[in-house]
Amino acid sequence: MVRWRNLQLVILPDNGRCFCEAARTGAPKFANWDCLEGFSCPRRVLPAATRRFHRPTCLRDQRAEVPSFLETYKQAVEFPPATHDFETFLARAEPNTEVVLHGYLGPRADLSKKLSFVKLTDPTMKYSLQVVAFAKNDAFEKLKALNANSPVAVRGTVQKKKAKASDTADQPAEDMWELALEDINALNDFPKDIIMTPETVFAPEQRYLQLRSDAELREALRFRAQVRNVCKKELEENSQPPFVEIETPLLFKSTPEGAREFLVPTRRPGLAYALPQSPQQYKQILMASGLPRYFQFARCFRDEDLRADRQPEFTQLDLEMSFAKGEDVMRTIEGVIRRLWSTLMKDPAPEGPFRRLPYQEAMARYGSDKPDTRYGMEIIRLDHALPVDLVNKISGLQDPIVEAFKVESNENDPAETGQFIAQFLDSPAGAPFNNNPDGGPGVFVYNGKQPLCGLQPFGFEAAEQVEEILEPDHGDLIILQARPRAPFSGGSTPIGDLRRALHAFAVSTGFKPAPTGFDFMWVVDFPLFSPSSDSEPGQGGAAGIASTHHPFTAPKTAADVDMLLSDPTQAVADHYDLVVNGVELGGGSRRIHDAAVQEFILRDILKMPAERLADFSHLLDALRAGCPPHAGLALGFDRLVAVMLGKESVRDVIAFPKTGKGGDDAMVRAPSPMTAEALETYHLRLRE
Amino acid sequence: MVRWRNLQLVILPDNGRCFCEAARTGAPKFANWDCLEGFSCPRRVLPAATRRFHRPTCLRDQRAEVPSFLETYKQAVEFPPATHDFETFLARAEPNTEVVLHGYLGPRADLSKKLSFVKLTDPTMKYSLQVVAFAKNDAFEKLKALNANSPVAVRGTVQKKKAKASDTADQPAEDMWELALEDINALNDFPKDIIMTPETVFAPEQRYLQLRSDAELREALRFRAQVRNVCKKELEENSQPPFVEIETPLLFKSTPEGAREFLVPTRRPGLAYALPQSPQQYKQILMASGLPRYFQFARCFRDEDLRADRQPEFTQLDLEMSFAKGEDVMRTIEGVIRRLWSTLMKDPAPEGPFRRLPYQEAMARYGSDKPDTRYGMEIIRLDHALPVDLVNKISGLQDPIVEAFKVESNENDPAETGQFIAQFLDSPAGAPFNNNPDGGPGVFVYNGKQPLCGLQPFGFEAAEQVEEILEPDHGDLIILQARPRAPFSGGSTPIGDLRRALHAFAVSTGFKPAPTGFDFMWVVDFPLFSPSSDSEPGQGGAAGIASTHHPFTAPKTAADVDMLLSDPTQAVADHYDLVVNGVELGGGSRRIHDAAVQEFILRDILKMPAERLADFSHLLDALRAGCPPHAGLALGFDRLVAVMLGKESVRDVIAFPKTGKGGDDAMVRAPSPMTAEALETYHLRLRE
Repeated sequence: MVRWRNLQLVILPDNGRCFCEAARTGAPKFANWDCLEGFSCPRRVLPAATRRFHRPTCLRDQRAEVPSFLETYKQAVEFPPATHDFETFLARAEPNTEVVLHGYLGPRADLSKKLSFVKLTDPTMKYSLQVVAFAKNDAFEKLKALNANSPVAVRGTVQKKKAKASDTADQPAEDMWELALEDINALNDFPKDIIMTPETVFAPEQRYLQLRSDAELREALRFRAQVRNVCKKELEENSQPPFVEIETPLLFKSTPEGAREFLVPTRRPGLAYALPQSPQQYKQILMASGLPRYFQFARCFRDEDLRADRQPEFTQLDLEMSFAKGEDVMRTIEGVIRRLWSTLMKDPAPEGPFRRLPYQEAMARYGSDKPDTRYGMEIIRLDHALPVDLVNKISGLQDPIVEAFKVESNENDPAETGQFIAQFLDSPAGAPFNNNPDGGPGVFVYNGKQPLCGLQPFGFEAAEQVEEILEPDHGDLIILQARPRAPFSGGSTPIGDLRRALHAFAVSTGFKPAPTGFDFMWVVDFPLFSPSSDSEPGQGGAAGIASTHHPFTAPKTAADVDMLLSDPTQAVADHYDLVVNGVELGGGSRRIHDAAVQEFILRDILKMPAERLADFSHLLDALRAGCPPHAGLALGFDRLVAVMLGKESVRDVIAFPKTGKGGDDAMVRAPSPMTAEALETYHLRLRE
Repeated sequence: MVRWRNLQLVILPDNGRCFCEAARTGAPKFANWDCLEGFSCPRRVLPAATRRFHRPTCLRDQRAEVPSFLETYKQAVEFPPATHDFETFLARAEPNTEVVLHGYLGPRADLSKKLSFVKLTDPTMKYSLQVVAFAKNDAFEKLKALNANSPVAVRGTVQKKKAKASDTADQPAEDMWELALEDINALNDFPKDIIMTPETVFAPEQRYLQLRSDAELREALRFRAQVRNVCKKELEENSQPPFVEIETPLLFKSTPEGAREFLVPTRRPGLAYALPQSPQQYKQILMASGLPRYFQFARCFRDEDLRADRQPEFTQLDLEMSFAKGEDVMRTIEGVIRRLWSTLMKDPAPEGPFRRLPYQEAMARYGSDKPDTRYGMEIIRLDHALPVDLVNKISGLQDPIVEAFKVESNENDPAETGQFIAQFLDSPAGAPFNNNPDGGPGVFVYNGKQPLCGLQPFGFEAAEQVEEILEPDHGDLIILQARPRAPFSGGSTPIGDLRRALHAFAVSTGFKPAPTGFDFMWVVDFPLFSPSSDSEPGQGGAAGIASTHHPFTAPKTAADVDMLLSDPTQAVADHYDLVVNGVELGGGSRRIHDAAVQEFILRDILKMPAERLADFSHLLDALRAGCPPHAGLALGFDRLVAVMLGKESVRDVIAFPKTGKGGDDAMVRAPSPMTAEALETYHLRLRE
């Protein structure tokens, strides 16, 4: 038991050095100095000057004196409760009444030695009120000892502000009232050396300062909560039977579905849980369990490298419905989106069902399975029209597919267009396209003042065809790009990437206006299977193909079921991605609800080894017990909120995002080293 | 690329053996038989007879034939959408209209070769409707081929049921209407050999069957969603400023707060995240970030052994408020509880603020820090009144504290009372009390017909005092129990445990009636620090004491702040536990909001080594940046729902609970072995 009666505390003076520096220079001396060894300098966050360290030192036979920081704290322990929140106060303020308000101090203006003004901002930092302090009582001196941004409790008398010439009838209540200071309780101290303005950008380590100084960021979190509520309301109130929010486990099992899973070792040697990539299997089992409508804001995990729109942990609005097909899910989600837009956005979402764009068409016309279709620049296949020598010039490929798109110029000025495309190709955004091993882009500026309007390399005949197909105007840009002659697979083509990058560059340089509005669509008719690559963690099958999305996706029609036997790569999936403005908001599918078919796909099509197949036995057993047909979807919730707020990164709508490339939480410094003790508990050793 | 054109499928006959058995006995032969090696028998769940396995075998130059299970599935791919959900249908049924309804078949009654009746139960399994099938079309035969419980889509003509004598005006709509079968789509098959009645108890592996057969369990999940919504509504709508639902990370950092944490290794050698025991630190940082009211239904994790009321992952309603003291949080939670009870329960919660019971008083009067106070049996200290030789008889301890309680007998029959207590002490529930090394319970039956009413061992004088203190009636039981002379610490005393166990036994045997109603209270004034034991993972300090709850708990008053210097073990915490009927629903505290004080507690009182202290630097930095005072609480959400529904175990209110002692999910079989590949990815090896 520690006894404190014989201790006295000595406080290291706040002398602008953090403790480890003080130790090095040996400034102060303490009886138990040696205990400090091994202390790592935590100076990385705040400037050294603000750090204080307190050390007790044994001085025998002295009574304890209460150190000043405990005295300060005792003052803050007891503070008067607020009589009003600001919103209520401003709505019902009455002159000459006494109120207590809580909040943060603003910067103080000392008008004279006897008169100061200071703003008091409420705890939500939405409202503020002027406080007038006269040198008539202690409170005046107390106020003067406090730094701006410090939390306080203020007691004061309500008084009407003197009217100014500029006042209008509808001026905000904040401008009508002020408080004559009677007393003030300092609740904590804001360090003088932290500079905090609405413009300050703090390091990720100081997320709390970013949140506190950045009203837009705090508002994004409030907005996120509203988005959540609207989604919930629509699912719970506008569906019959209603969707029910059901939680599913996060300590799940490793099953090979796609991305790499985080493992959670247990104290039983060699056994681990896995954190789920999605609640997919549990929600399907709910459908087999007589719970026909499920939803959840589910935390999901993927052990993948960080990108602007991807976090190792993320939230999805996850749902599933039984006795349902893909169409039912799409209609449900359209209802959610429509309600979100009509409730929370400036303009409602477009009327009627969202457009359906088949995967093959999306890839052909936009070179992307999540196209932004608002800005034209549609891709058109041209190889049939091109002379062989031109094709040979733009690609070293044997008999390639050649596609083209046109960028319309606003100014009809070929020189300006030429300058724009040269600038793009010289920029970091353009570089990867120049270095395409299948050949860089072929660039032509349509120019009525040149022979064949600048299309000489096409030859007369092809130039005429190209004009007929693309209908270019004076000053427009024509881009050609070759790719190998093969069916579409994956999320984009080189010309699709080029279209996107070139458009982004055109917007950022002012060559094109930024597109506006929200263009919702469902991209549908994905192939059920795609060629698998060895480099990524896959579904563990040996067939050379993998499910394009996940192995529980159902074939779309009876004809696609037949295709499973004749040529599975030709089978179309009942999968649908919700895409808006080039962003994939989420995706879903009808699932295979028949155990025999599911087993056939895992075993005979994907050629999973028997031991991996056994990992799915719980799902097969659940399907086998008379599971009804079902379909569902997951919306990337972080991304949905980011899109609604027009934010580039999901980090701007997450309170504490991971920021480092390795998935670091820079603020708490996670991940951190496993201790020898922890490794032993979990029967593990580090590999050398 | 796999080519399937040359494959034919052979289906293993459903011959009552699972595949591995078939393999052992060698019944069927396939071309690629050898691939089956290493297949582990998944027979644990369904009876072997229901398992079917399908194997392709290469037979050259044969065209594919579509195997029957794919043909069956093709039928289920296309099915008509329901024209109505049952609720809408029953409200608006019109005779002679044609409808399509989805649902599950009930058992079929064949009245003749040409007439059958079958119930159709809707997807929620709340409603059902009679279907009449005549042998006039295909549908009749299709129906007869289907097992009960199979999911179907039924097309039929609505007709009014013939009125019966027993019919009343307010009979349910289900009994007024029936459907004449026109067509039926089989959507899946329910195996004949699964016996499913409302009474069947399925193994944890078959949770989906339990959920599907057990209406009460499904209803518990719906109720849980309602509880969630009511809590949310109260916090969002009835607080000014409103609480905002904010998600905090689950990939957190290992910090020494109490329970053992699960680790999540990363691909960076030796580094791991930890899953949070609670969002404690993040929510405190939110308070420093200008977000004054936070709540979240937070998933939390503790690597501890399973108990009926404890899961390795659990959900808590977590909240925090700034510019607030403990009282503000208690008032908020009383509002939540009151709204829950008035909205969802039979009787509303009692009016007015909940009773406050100080820890010392709870321990003295009930021997528990979460007492059920509804049934009396209050504990009274007796050692001052007892003769030394009696004390020596009931305990080998030197100068023990002796406490007593009385169990009133309803029958006033000493013989019955004697039998009851003997039965208890002989039962498994009573055994641990007999084996108490500090002495077993002293048992006395008050009996007016015996000398000194059965209190002879007390001697005349003490017996008289005991009668005065306990006021026993004829047939009442008096229990004495000794314990070492030491201050209260921990959650209960031996006599408190005895009181609880004896009462539970009395209720289970009918000796006492079960107490009714809900008795809410706040247990307050816990000691800030308690002696720490080496056996449990603690806060990593070297002081021999640990924070009773967690090291962020604030001392209650200025006097308790002073106590930090003079005798920290005497300091009282501003901590509060919400207790109802002997169950702790949750707890919370005011937090230390001052960095210097927090650092002082961690470093100088708990004597954490510097490197552990550095783990908290993010929190200290956030407090240092002018953090306002704040307080919060976490309600065990699983337990709250269980208490509201009168369930013994939280497992009855969780869709997929862990059931094994080691935290197993028996259904999906998690945890599971880590593969060599996974270990390598995370730079780990198993310890031999």
